[in-house]
Amino acid sequence: MPVLSRLSAYAGNPIEDTDELAAKLKKEGRKIIKLNQGNPTAIFPTPKYIIDAYVSALKEGKTGYSFHAGIPELRQAVADRQNRLYDADFGLEDVIITQGVSESISFINSTFVDPGSRAVLLRPYYPTYLTFLKTVGGVPLFADYSEKEGFKFNPDSLEKALKKERKMPKFMIFSNPCNPTGTVMRRDELKEVVDIMNDHGIFLISDEIYDEIVFNGAKFTSISEVAKGTKYAIIGGASKNFDATGFRIGYMIVPEKDKTSIDVNRKIRDYAKMRLSSNTTAQYAFASALENRKEHEKAIRGMVDKIKDRVNRSCEVINEGKHMQVVQPNGAFYLLPKIDMKNLRLKNDFDVVQKLLLEEGVQVSRGSGFGAPDHIRIVALAPEDILELAIRKIDKFFVKHSK
Amino acid sequence: MPVLSRLSAYAGNPIEDTDELAAKLKKEGRKIIKLNQGNPTAIFPTPKYIIDAYVSALKEGKTGYSFHAGIPELRQAVADRQNRLYDADFGLEDVIITQGVSESISFINSTFVDPGSRAVLLRPYYPTYLTFLKTVGGVPLFADYSEKEGFKFNPDSLEKALKKERKMPKFMIFSNPCNPTGTVMRRDELKEVVDIMNDHGIFLISDEIYDEIVFNGAKFTSISEVAKGTKYAIIGGASKNFDATGFRIGYMIVPEKDKTSIDVNRKIRDYAKMRLSSNTTAQYAFASALENRKEHEKAIRGMVDKIKDRVNRSCEVINEGKHMQVVQPNGAFYLLPKIDMKNLRLKNDFDVVQKLLLEEGVQVSRGSGFGAPDHIRIVALAPEDILELAIRKIDKFFVKHSK
Repeated sequence: MPVLSRLSAYAGNPIEDTDELAAKLKKEGRKIIKLNQGNPTAIFPTPKYIIDAYVSALKEGKTGYSFHAGIPELRQAVADRQNRLYDADFGLEDVIITQGVSESISFINSTFVDPGSRAVLLRPYYPTYLTFLKTVGGVPLFADYSEKEGFKFNPDSLEKALKKERKMPKFMIFSNPCNPTGTVMRRDELKEVVDIMNDHGIFLISDEIYDEIVFNGAKFTSISEVAKGTKYAIIGGASKNFDATGFRIGYMIVPEKDKTSIDVNRKIRDYAKMRLSSNTTAQYAFASALENRKEHEKAIRGMVDKIKDRVNRSCEVINEGKHMQVVQPNGAFYLLPKIDMKNLRLKNDFDVVQKLLLEEGVQVSRGSGFGAPDHIRIVALAPEDILELAIRKIDKFFVKHSK
Repeated sequence: MPVLSRLSAYAGNPIEDTDELAAKLKKEGRKIIKLNQGNPTAIFPTPKYIIDAYVSALKEGKTGYSFHAGIPELRQAVADRQNRLYDADFGLEDVIITQGVSESISFINSTFVDPGSRAVLLRPYYPTYLTFLKTVGGVPLFADYSEKEGFKFNPDSLEKALKKERKMPKFMIFSNPCNPTGTVMRRDELKEVVDIMNDHGIFLISDEIYDEIVFNGAKFTSISEVAKGTKYAIIGGASKNFDATGFRIGYMIVPEKDKTSIDVNRKIRDYAKMRLSSNTTAQYAFASALENRKEHEKAIRGMVDKIKDRVNRSCEVINEGKHMQVVQPNGAFYLLPKIDMKNLRLKNDFDVVQKLLLEEGVQVSRGSGFGAPDHIRIVALAPEDILELAIRKIDKFFVKHSK
């Protein structure tokens, strides 16, 4: 009898594939440019007003277990934010606080998925959607963004995937703005998604963790603005908009508007009860961050302006080379350039990422981990000179390995 | 097709069964004595030196994602503590930081359990062992403590359970000091457990989260002191000994001494990668708490002295009544009195707990949630006068409902 469970084979994270190797190289004195993890807090310190609120909560002794679904102040603040930004009408009971978006995704999969259950992922996808699905025995059904059309959602591919499959999927999950493509879904695209979900009665999970990080003229639409009848949940958190990745505070909004949604909301709370609570003090800090709109406006504007410049400059530098092509992002802080593999003496994107780290000290993620083989994902958060240096190193690497 | 997964039916937590009702009653202006959750931090503020370290880490900007298996400072500090207290020889690589003990238990179950896999639980057990096992499709195999012998471990019941079962269990898990009985396993009992595990080649998980909370002359033995050849893991964390339940920082020690243990250690890291990191700042605070031995000694001694008095006084008051019998604890801070149900006009322990909350405003947990029907679990952390008042209310309640 094998010790490890069969499904544990799917555990892992392709984004962190090379973290052990990078740590080893660093120990040997090598300098590594780390562009594989979407960790804004490593570049932009968490705003002082949030730190101050965190310190106050600590000094007030808010360090014990809190309610499994989250402290009421934070649940209400999350609902208020959505209502203000997207003209929604959520209440405290619709909101469940989780240990980061990762835990929201874990709860979703445990709540919906039996062995063999189907779930739809829009490809390229955030890898954790797939790993959590597979580790509970679920089977992915892929629909695609069209890279040729700037990673626009391709409704035909979704209809085709649903027609081919006799088993009705339990849910569909996607991120908007998209990790890893950095594109924001236009309102008309989102409406197409909603219409198809409505036709098939599929529960829709919209991961909106980057909803305030949009630029280059894009406008973000929340699923709640167009859902009309579709059952849905929204995922978000403190990590990106509030630049606090290490807090591990996320949230799910499952509006209690119909029996299915109420059942899902209650079941997610049951899972939340099993791990007692999220970090209590960080919840108070995040609640305070959500309430302090003036300070937040200042912080998010400053950060998004910088991100926009870094993303755009990175695209320019990529386009100066010959071995990568990139779709210009307008949200989040990721770039997903396609690599001209057929002109390289390298096996695949896994090979690219390993050798790039070893030879040039540049750490990026392999596209195949996101359902996009022959691509790499670059996190465009570092200062422009670092990004420029890294991309020129990548280019040099490709020239060296070209046929 | 039902929306919710089949296994999600097992999600939940019997300890928090009545939390929604209690919240409702409080809203109506009722005063509730909350004795259902093992939350020392609600009674004893987290020691100031730990808060100070947390504040320093915040001000130093340690608020981004950290390494999935935990910051090296904390992993080393955990290893050092075990080595110092129990003459072990753990290294940093043996230690994995988790989001509380709950996440350690979740990782263990996902790592080992296929649908139908068996795992041994010593009964009465901590409910989360069972719920995490069942939500991944595992099947419990119960061995018992003997209540008549002061909740001593009963090796015959374990041998019998193992003989009856043709399928070899994947692991055994138990807590020492025991939640919910409050008893510390003697070294000779622990050796009996280890011998049986050795005979059958079963992986042993020792949950030692309360290892410094022992009193009334008991001496705690860590599994590493007696394991000799048995494959094992230790679970612990900041919550109880360091009085920081809301930090959500736990750890697992899976000593990398043989192939099985290395496989398990690596697989748990794979699960850790999926949720990126634990709360980073709280990890620095806990690392500092582990290193500051003088302050910790002072804090833990003060807390354990108070807990001892509260537990012992609670036992006295329980024994003054006629409807409950309790085994005197010597560790943790739980009491598990047996209720004389046959002389009461109440259906079962669930009925007891619900009506006790409604009629007397005293919130305790039902024993059936711990595999001990006809018992209730009382958390003996509140000041003595509150505990005395609550137990007298429970007694009054039983007198009122007696036949």
